[in-house]
Amino acid sequence: MVVALNNNAQHQVVIIGGGFGGLYTAKHLAKANVKVTLIDKRNFHLFQPLLYQVATGTLSPADISSPLRAVFSKSKNTQVLLGEVNDIDPKAQQVIMGDKVVPYDTLIVATGANHSYFGKDNWKELAPGLKTVEDAIEMRRRIFSAFEAAEKETDPEKRRALLTFVIVGGGPTGVELAGAIAELAYKTLKEDFRNIDTSETKILLLQGGDRILPHISPDLSQVAAVSLQKLGVILQTNTRVTNIENNIVTFKQGDEVTAIASKTILWAAGVQGSAMGKVLAERTGVECDRSGRAIVEPDLTIKGYKNIFVVGDLGNFSYQDGKPLPGVAPVAKQQGEYVAKLIQKRLQGQTSRPFHYNHVGSLAMIGQNLAIVDLGFLKLTGFLAWVFWLIVHIYFLIEFDTKLLVVFQWAWNYITRNRRSRLITGKEDYVEAKTVNNITQIAN
Amino acid sequence: MVVALNNNAQHQVVIIGGGFGGLYTAKHLAKANVKVTLIDKRNFHLFQPLLYQVATGTLSPADISSPLRAVFSKSKNTQVLLGEVNDIDPKAQQVIMGDKVVPYDTLIVATGANHSYFGKDNWKELAPGLKTVEDAIEMRRRIFSAFEAAEKETDPEKRRALLTFVIVGGGPTGVELAGAIAELAYKTLKEDFRNIDTSETKILLLQGGDRILPHISPDLSQVAAVSLQKLGVILQTNTRVTNIENNIVTFKQGDEVTAIASKTILWAAGVQGSAMGKVLAERTGVECDRSGRAIVEPDLTIKGYKNIFVVGDLGNFSYQDGKPLPGVAPVAKQQGEYVAKLIQKRLQGQTSRPFHYNHVGSLAMIGQNLAIVDLGFLKLTGFLAWVFWLIVHIYFLIEFDTKLLVVFQWAWNYITRNRRSRLITGKEDYVEAKTVNNITQIAN
Repeated sequence: MVVALNNNAQHQVVIIGGGFGGLYTAKHLAKANVKVTLIDKRNFHLFQPLLYQVATGTLSPADISSPLRAVFSKSKNTQVLLGEVNDIDPKAQQVIMGDKVVPYDTLIVATGANHSYFGKDNWKELAPGLKTVEDAIEMRRRIFSAFEAAEKETDPEKRRALLTFVIVGGGPTGVELAGAIAELAYKTLKEDFRNIDTSETKILLLQGGDRILPHISPDLSQVAAVSLQKLGVILQTNTRVTNIENNIVTFKQGDEVTAIASKTILWAAGVQGSAMGKVLAERTGVECDRSGRAIVEPDLTIKGYKNIFVVGDLGNFSYQDGKPLPGVAPVAKQQGEYVAKLIQKRLQGQTSRPFHYNHVGSLAMIGQNLAIVDLGFLKLTGFLAWVFWLIVHIYFLIEFDTKLLVVFQWAWNYITRNRRSRLITGKEDYVEAKTVNNITQIAN
Repeated sequence: MVVALNNNAQHQVVIIGGGFGGLYTAKHLAKANVKVTLIDKRNFHLFQPLLYQVATGTLSPADISSPLRAVFSKSKNTQVLLGEVNDIDPKAQQVIMGDKVVPYDTLIVATGANHSYFGKDNWKELAPGLKTVEDAIEMRRRIFSAFEAAEKETDPEKRRALLTFVIVGGGPTGVELAGAIAELAYKTLKEDFRNIDTSETKILLLQGGDRILPHISPDLSQVAAVSLQKLGVILQTNTRVTNIENNIVTFKQGDEVTAIASKTILWAAGVQGSAMGKVLAERTGVECDRSGRAIVEPDLTIKGYKNIFVVGDLGNFSYQDGKPLPGVAPVAKQQGEYVAKLIQKRLQGQTSRPFHYNHVGSLAMIGQNLAIVDLGFLKLTGFLAWVFWLIVHIYFLIEFDTKLLVVFQWAWNYITRNRRSRLITGKEDYVEAKTVNNITQIAN
């Protein structure tokens, strides 16, 4: 049975994906004379930049999530559909969801990107990434389970592997994870265990390039590196992971090959366009880059389809500086806003100028009192940068949902160094992390 | 390999279970001249009375959980062990955890109780209960997924089943769930959907006895019933569930048998002592009641074992009124405190009077501005009772963990009628609730 969910004479805008790109497109169409259908697999928008704080026990998933229906409750021209899009039919102008079809006049594909394991997909289970709420809960489970298992482990070598954390990727997420785990091990958990000394924890951050945070200026990148090292993180640049198996990470720095036993390997590297990119390529012939991102036209449409737009991480927009815009929230948001305006102009018979990304600045959090802000004309480090980082993130968090509590939460955590959200949940075998099972069997 | 985790000349107290009973025992031993080992499968204490607020999207799991290590961080005589106890050896005075043993001088078993499905264990999957964080997340997933599926359902009959919620059990949890779902359907979600009218939602509360909240006085129970009905809940007393299958609940009221199609059946009935009760019975010969609860002596020890105590829901203490004390937090807390004091007195050669439960009062939350308080000398209903309920719960919540944020959260939710924690998470097939699959296949 095929049921058309929209049968309306109004111009139908269908948006696939409720991340920053999709959300901002919909937001800026809320007062337009169009009908908007926002489709997402999840019933909430996730503020991904703070996901690492869920993974390290500071925030709860709901603190950084906004139920999509709540966001669009008052936008009567917008309907939210929970479900997965299987296919797109650009000829019939339809999006296919199982046995239902959703017709569109204009389609926005905003399904984002995932981590890339550079073809080693079996590493995914051994070194999980951080894209979804479930990823964060799994990471949290592994991190805290490692300390728990170490507390019970009597073999010094096994204990050492349990207290070794390896983070692959020195972009913002990798840096933030490394900093947060350092604070956990060297500060928050210090008094909590009886058999282990958590200050013996070893945290390695492996970066392929010659510096961490390559998107910010070299001097600030250097400040970040020194700050991380002061926190206790061991930083390895120009380092390529060559193998992950059986809780052993092998990496190469120049000609030197090192293998290290670690029970908790976390992945924060690579970009891989989401599956919808492939569908789009098959159906429209749009060219994708090596990372599976669709190459968009200057107005964010795809070649040959004036009514199909790609916004956010799934798109490769290379008309500024010649290299693709980074997969960060501000790009997605500006693209969403741009497309929303373009659609309205078109309906009024007007044309639009090509998309131009207005880079405001880069931020990265390293630890308490410790952040990096690069606004071009202004560079901040340390406490001031940390406050700035907080204000910016709070500002964006409360933009479409009143998350005042998150502010209190941070303030409170800051004062108390508390990690109240450090629950080990989600799996039947919650007692021992899966990665830990090879070494020790304490409590089956 | 057998490793003794304790090898110390000090008196060893081992507590199995970090619920209210175990936690309060440990708390009141924190300054005693004994070594305390608290064993739990989870790394956090859960404030179970508020679990229904997680299940209905008001609070996050971390809001009502306290990491055990954080609670006992400063109690240097106390160690927390994360793991599952497989067995007890009362002769050798050892608790067995896999290949590790933990010797004890005094043992406290505080592993609590689960729901009873009255022998119909296959109902468990069809009508989940509410005891753990995972239970709450699963319940939340089912509740919100039902509304989502209804939004997409075009068949009126199937839609009706999706908008029908059946809660089995009219104790505090059942009443609180029914009230919370009524507020969700008739207030919070009212504006959020485009194809369904959530005010058509049907909420049935089935109670076996002749009134809900049998633990409070009949007049207050009546007030609760009227309040629930005003909220829109259909209340059926003297009603016994006779079958659950294929999303159909069948129940009997007198001679009348009714079958109703419902996609979301929630269980809040019955008591069944946890598995450790069986182990204890096998190893010590202690008698258990029909619900699998260990029958304790007046001093909470078990027959023949002066150094084994059972506190909280797992115990059947019937020396007051002749019937077992109810499985509620205040009983467990008082028992924990009692046992902690008894142990210290014993070590000083003193004896203790039998345990006596000091009943302070009963509370139940129905909805916003709507609660029931029965202190015996004082009975409150409506807004005043609601405020009282809040104050009492906040007081207990912040007792061992600073949960001031939960206060802000409630206050905020109260003002905004917001359910910011209504995430559908946790399963791969998060788009459709498992129970929903039989009826509709929209988005595979």
